Amino acid sequence: MTLEETRDLDRADPLAAIRDRFVLPDGVIYLDGNSLGPLAKAARARIAEVVEREWGQGLIRSWNEAHWIEAPLRVGDKIARLIGARPGEVVVADSTSVNLHKLLVAALRTRPGRTTILSETGNFPTDLYVAEGAAAAISGARVKAVDPAAVEAAIDTDTAVVLITHVHYKSAARRDMARLTAAAHETGALILWDLSHSVGAVPLDLTGCEADLAVGCGYKFLNGGPGAPAFLYVAERHQAALTPTLTGWMGHAAPFDFSDDWRPATGIARFLTGTPPILGLAGLEAGVDLALEVDGSTLSRKAEALWNLFAEHMETRLASHGFSLQTSRDPALRGSHIAYAHPEGFRIMQALIARGVIGDFREPDVVRFGLTPLYLSFEDIWRAVEILAQIMAEGAWEQAPARIPGQVT
Amino acid sequence: MTLEETRDLDRADPLAAIRDRFVLPDGVIYLDGNSLGPLAKAARARIAEVVEREWGQGLIRSWNEAHWIEAPLRVGDKIARLIGARPGEVVVADSTSVNLHKLLVAALRTRPGRTTILSETGNFPTDLYVAEGAAAAISGARVKAVDPAAVEAAIDTDTAVVLITHVHYKSAARRDMARLTAAAHETGALILWDLSHSVGAVPLDLTGCEADLAVGCGYKFLNGGPGAPAFLYVAERHQAALTPTLTGWMGHAAPFDFSDDWRPATGIARFLTGTPPILGLAGLEAGVDLALEVDGSTLSRKAEALWNLFAEHMETRLASHGFSLQTSRDPALRGSHIAYAHPEGFRIMQALIARGVIGDFREPDVVRFGLTPLYLSFEDIWRAVEILAQIMAEGAWEQAPARIPGQVT
Repeated sequence: MTLEETRDLDRADPLAAIRDRFVLPDGVIYLDGNSLGPLAKAARARIAEVVEREWGQGLIRSWNEAHWIEAPLRVGDKIARLIGARPGEVVVADSTSVNLHKLLVAALRTRPGRTTILSETGNFPTDLYVAEGAAAAISGARVKAVDPAAVEAAIDTDTAVVLITHVHYKSAARRDMARLTAAAHETGALILWDLSHSVGAVPLDLTGCEADLAVGCGYKFLNGGPGAPAFLYVAERHQAALTPTLTGWMGHAAPFDFSDDWRPATGIARFLTGTPPILGLAGLEAGVDLALEVDGSTLSRKAEALWNLFAEHMETRLASHGFSLQTSRDPALRGSHIAYAHPEGFRIMQALIARGVIGDFREPDVVRFGLTPLYLSFEDIWRAVEILAQIMAEGAWEQAPARIPGQVT
Repeated sequence: MTLEETRDLDRADPLAAIRDRFVLPDGVIYLDGNSLGPLAKAARARIAEVVEREWGQGLIRSWNEAHWIEAPLRVGDKIARLIGARPGEVVVADSTSVNLHKLLVAALRTRPGRTTILSETGNFPTDLYVAEGAAAAISGARVKAVDPAAVEAAIDTDTAVVLITHVHYKSAARRDMARLTAAAHETGALILWDLSHSVGAVPLDLTGCEADLAVGCGYKFLNGGPGAPAFLYVAERHQAALTPTLTGWMGHAAPFDFSDDWRPATGIARFLTGTPPILGLAGLEAGVDLALEVDGSTLSRKAEALWNLFAEHMETRLASHGFSLQTSRDPALRGSHIAYAHPEGFRIMQALIARGVIGDFREPDVVRFGLTPLYLSFEDIWRAVEILAQIMAEGAWEQAPARIPGQVT
């Protein structure tokens, strides 16, 4: 495809106008929205309003008058619409890690005869770390991590909960949610889906798949801002039976009665813990509102077209440079990023970033490019591959620094 | 004291200039900094910089280039200076509730022969709720809540950890930290101090008191903003032995190696969990920086003088109106707020807020006034009591609405 042809695609793109709703720095092609989504103009305005008017002028009154106290459930209900859940099944709270812990421990406690959290090797590390910690908190519980291809067959009557990521953070491999959920239910296990790399990126239907539990990230495809709070989902049918051990006053049935005894709120609110992070929630709500403006199938169609352009242009321009595609060519089996393994992946990514193409690197050798249809153009994709081709042709990555221990990648 | 005399005090106040560093709305006397501290101008500027420049322009690069990744430990080290702790003993993370859970569970697990979390009735509710949840997570553990006066005598060889609030949220009663810590240590128990109503308000010396563990709130006297993250403290001598079960990738020894196995970071960083909330941290750091500018003994002297003015003016103007002082007259035995019980407390507070004097109400009958020396003047204090006297003289509170269930108070 030529540059001019990509411009034709951009002129015909029904989502082209959405790009102007974001702040995107000059000279940058941003292919890392799967790690930190960019700043929406509405988020900037909303955060400024929260700071200046609601905090600065309203002060403590804003808990009622600016409806801060309702934000975790209000934004949760909006996210529910993005993931095919019902009102009252999603709440915004804490981080993905903390929410995972709450749900894993609660799930283990509702399946007392079963001792296993079943997950996969190579899962997003925090999922495995949290699972290890949750298992350590419950006498006799353990984590069993099997090869990704072996998860379904490994579900047995000792499985309390299957912990699985819907779209893999590195390869972008997408699981069949309906099938794996049904497999878990066949033995009486629960399933907990990590939607961090799915929500806002691929179609989701938690109700249709009869999913039990889920968590997801606010700062990736929801564009909530750095360290924005996460969300958790509990299907309504499980809410009465699941009680968190990670409690807190915001999850109490009557937090402002200040009584000594813990009495969980009815419904999803019991999974709240401490005071909600209002600045983070403001950014997240703006990001979610923007996502709700866009038709899901339009988004998926453009995501597929961007992905195909990237992959095809890589084949045309970089076939001889040792990049090995890690992501499925079948749109139903992948998320919205594309990953390649390359033995010099880290230094290649540094050279790309130095030239304004921002993707990221994942150990041991993977370069990732987020191809987010909300704000990327076809021209962006074409140019990014061109710049990579230049870097490889010139050997420019050889001058790039090696990874520093501790450095965020 | 006359209005003119309070103005003389303000002219002589060495902290008077600090008031201009805050945004305080016109027509408001803000006596609720113990619940939500006001907006510092530096916090407003810093949050805008994080949003516009670091998130908007820097995007993912800001984790390294804007030092986001270091913020939890960097701000923790600053808070350490405020509480008499050492560098590497404090980290900013999550909410007070979540941090309480981490430390209580970890503490229980290092004292396997001991089953009791000892606390007091009427403690800040989240502390008791979290303790209940933490006990539920550990087989055989329980919470024993005794009368505040009976805590010291109730510590025994079954006590794993004493969970106590340093300054009481309602009465402002302040505990003798050195004495109660020594009492806990005598039987081999650990002690966990909740500093939420102390930090930034009263002198603290955790090292000098040989405190073991602590948590504290970022949005009260530290002025970090609504739902700002909290902090936790673990004395260096305990850090190697205490391992959280609430784990997460930020607490891993090498988070960006993305390995499957949990390996806790050395030191306080192991108590990190998920991705840090950068906007909340920005507000908190600005608040903490401002607190560090001020000499602690100057602050304490002014706090005492404000408190005395409030109490004396209440006696002069409102002796016959049924307010019963709940706070100790001894500065060493109280925090920086003042509390009165009154059977019509809720409606009286509503009438005060309607006239621009913002304090708050705590069940069943307590009105609280935060007398924060950083930004309050002597004239503020005098005027607040005058307005209360007018309300009581006119019976204006009788027109105020009763409490709505669920309303934030």
